[in-house]
Amino acid sequence: MGSGSWGTAFAAVMADAGTDVTMWSRRPELAEAIETTRVNDDYLPSLRLTDRVHVTSDVAEAMDGSDILVLAVPSQTLRENLEGWREHIPDGAPLVSLMKGIELGTLKRMTEVMEEVAEVPADRVVVVSGPNLAKEVADKQPAAAVVAASRHGVRSKVAEACAAPYFRPYTNADVVGTEIAGAVKNVIALSVGMAHGLGMGENSTATLLTRGLAETARLGVALGADPQTFLGLAGVGDMMATCSSRLSRNHQFGLALSEGKTVEEITAATNQTAEGVKSCRSILELARSVHVDMPIVEGVHAILHEGWTPDEMVRALMSRSRKSERV
Amino acid sequence: MGSGSWGTAFAAVMADAGTDVTMWSRRPELAEAIETTRVNDDYLPSLRLTDRVHVTSDVAEAMDGSDILVLAVPSQTLRENLEGWREHIPDGAPLVSLMKGIELGTLKRMTEVMEEVAEVPADRVVVVSGPNLAKEVADKQPAAAVVAASRHGVRSKVAEACAAPYFRPYTNADVVGTEIAGAVKNVIALSVGMAHGLGMGENSTATLLTRGLAETARLGVALGADPQTFLGLAGVGDMMATCSSRLSRNHQFGLALSEGKTVEEITAATNQTAEGVKSCRSILELARSVHVDMPIVEGVHAILHEGWTPDEMVRALMSRSRKSERV
Repeated sequence: MGSGSWGTAFAAVMADAGTDVTMWSRRPELAEAIETTRVNDDYLPSLRLTDRVHVTSDVAEAMDGSDILVLAVPSQTLRENLEGWREHIPDGAPLVSLMKGIELGTLKRMTEVMEEVAEVPADRVVVVSGPNLAKEVADKQPAAAVVAASRHGVRSKVAEACAAPYFRPYTNADVVGTEIAGAVKNVIALSVGMAHGLGMGENSTATLLTRGLAETARLGVALGADPQTFLGLAGVGDMMATCSSRLSRNHQFGLALSEGKTVEEITAATNQTAEGVKSCRSILELARSVHVDMPIVEGVHAILHEGWTPDEMVRALMSRSRKSERV
Repeated sequence: MGSGSWGTAFAAVMADAGTDVTMWSRRPELAEAIETTRVNDDYLPSLRLTDRVHVTSDVAEAMDGSDILVLAVPSQTLRENLEGWREHIPDGAPLVSLMKGIELGTLKRMTEVMEEVAEVPADRVVVVSGPNLAKEVADKQPAAAVVAASRHGVRSKVAEACAAPYFRPYTNADVVGTEIAGAVKNVIALSVGMAHGLGMGENSTATLLTRGLAETARLGVALGADPQTFLGLAGVGDMMATCSSRLSRNHQFGLALSEGKTVEEITAATNQTAEGVKSCRSILELARSVHVDMPIVEGVHAILHEGWTPDEMVRALMSRSRKSERV
């Protein structure tokens, strides 16, 4: 459900894994164009879909009889979408989230929204995450991902359905950690973009990323996650791919901030907001609700909403009192 | 002890932390040149040392009355050096290793060699490691590091002595994990260099790095390390800085391998061997001795010594049976 760049690339992965896919696109004209031309020109023009992928804008047709339901809509629209789809959700099918975000207001993770709105038990929700830049997966570059679900049978089923020659799924039981890692990495990528913009090198970048991962793990553990998840593909892996890709929206946004531009100016110039900008506040609120200290997320928040400069943030981070490294 | 690039940069860090430093250089002419010009032209021409750093080639003068002894010689020469220095080692001073390697033949970590040869108890040895490319530290770019020692008082003392405005030490009790992370990352950096050489993108690189970290953690845990160390600055942090720096020797060596050159050809052309090439075999032997599976290290070993091509290695890695992500 969803034909953005990652939704489309993942449909191709599943098809290449031998799974028949029906991809739903909100706009009928886009659905028809992809169905006919086999190419999603709006989001992923370099990928040609095989005949295993059928495209429709009809929700009932997309969901009817499906064994696995994959959700790939913008994270802040999930609740509204699911409310409209509820009656069509097939009995017993795992619900897979490809989304990375924390719902504004409720501070819920995507699978929590899924459980609540679709009224499915916690053992039916699944998260797929990892170092998966859509463009590279579409180009069939070797990559791996985590398929996280609390029940063994559920995660194996989804892993089986997306194991393509160039896409290697690893299973993991930790849904909470996998989601928290995916949501926070966008904010850390913003800070890394700023560091690059300030002319900092690999040591500073790696330090920011590592300490960012440590505070992500602290938040995750406080919410019940397994700390080892952050050492894995959804943690280190995704963080590294996102922060290394200088073309990512979060990175670009951080770069622009380091040049002294304001959030409003950057948003106006690029006509879009980076995910890290949207979720920074809800992540900080979530951290405060469980009394977890997240100095990098706080610093990014202070830059976005309190007029701090990136320079001030770096100085504040470096002058904190000496600490043990442990999460 | 040692005036290579990292030894010299770390001397400057300690001096900038307010610590008086005597740096030992093996060659009298280099010691005199640095003492006079304040610049180590051979290894780190961009750094100007302050008057807090005194340079000598006299071992007794360097060690006499020192509160902390920092060792920064090539890892495979440590045993021989220490044997000659034994009588001068000051009573009670912590022995700090800046070295990253596993001794060939004995398969010992650097601090194990230190304990054995210097006859000091395990609670007197310390490891400093992290995302610390010497050139960037010399340029006073913000960075952080891990100071690992089993005793709290010892790690605090060393952390205090190297806490400069641009260099932030974090303490950690895990000596084994910190050393294993530092040694294995060189081999992983080789594999990442090959991946770049094969034209792979961020997803593949991040996957290699993450799965490399997972096998590093497996080895560390089998040897008694804390898995969380690998999530920290000496783990993720150092791995990320080393693998991102396309100028690193390991990375360059990997690149050249991906072009089909042999180890002999590359060594001859560059007149030096990358650390990852030297330690690959001892790490693999160490892993086998504790029955730990390290597919990436094995793949690199097969390329270095068994005539595999980098392409064959990647294919072998991607076609392994499906697995859980856990260490």
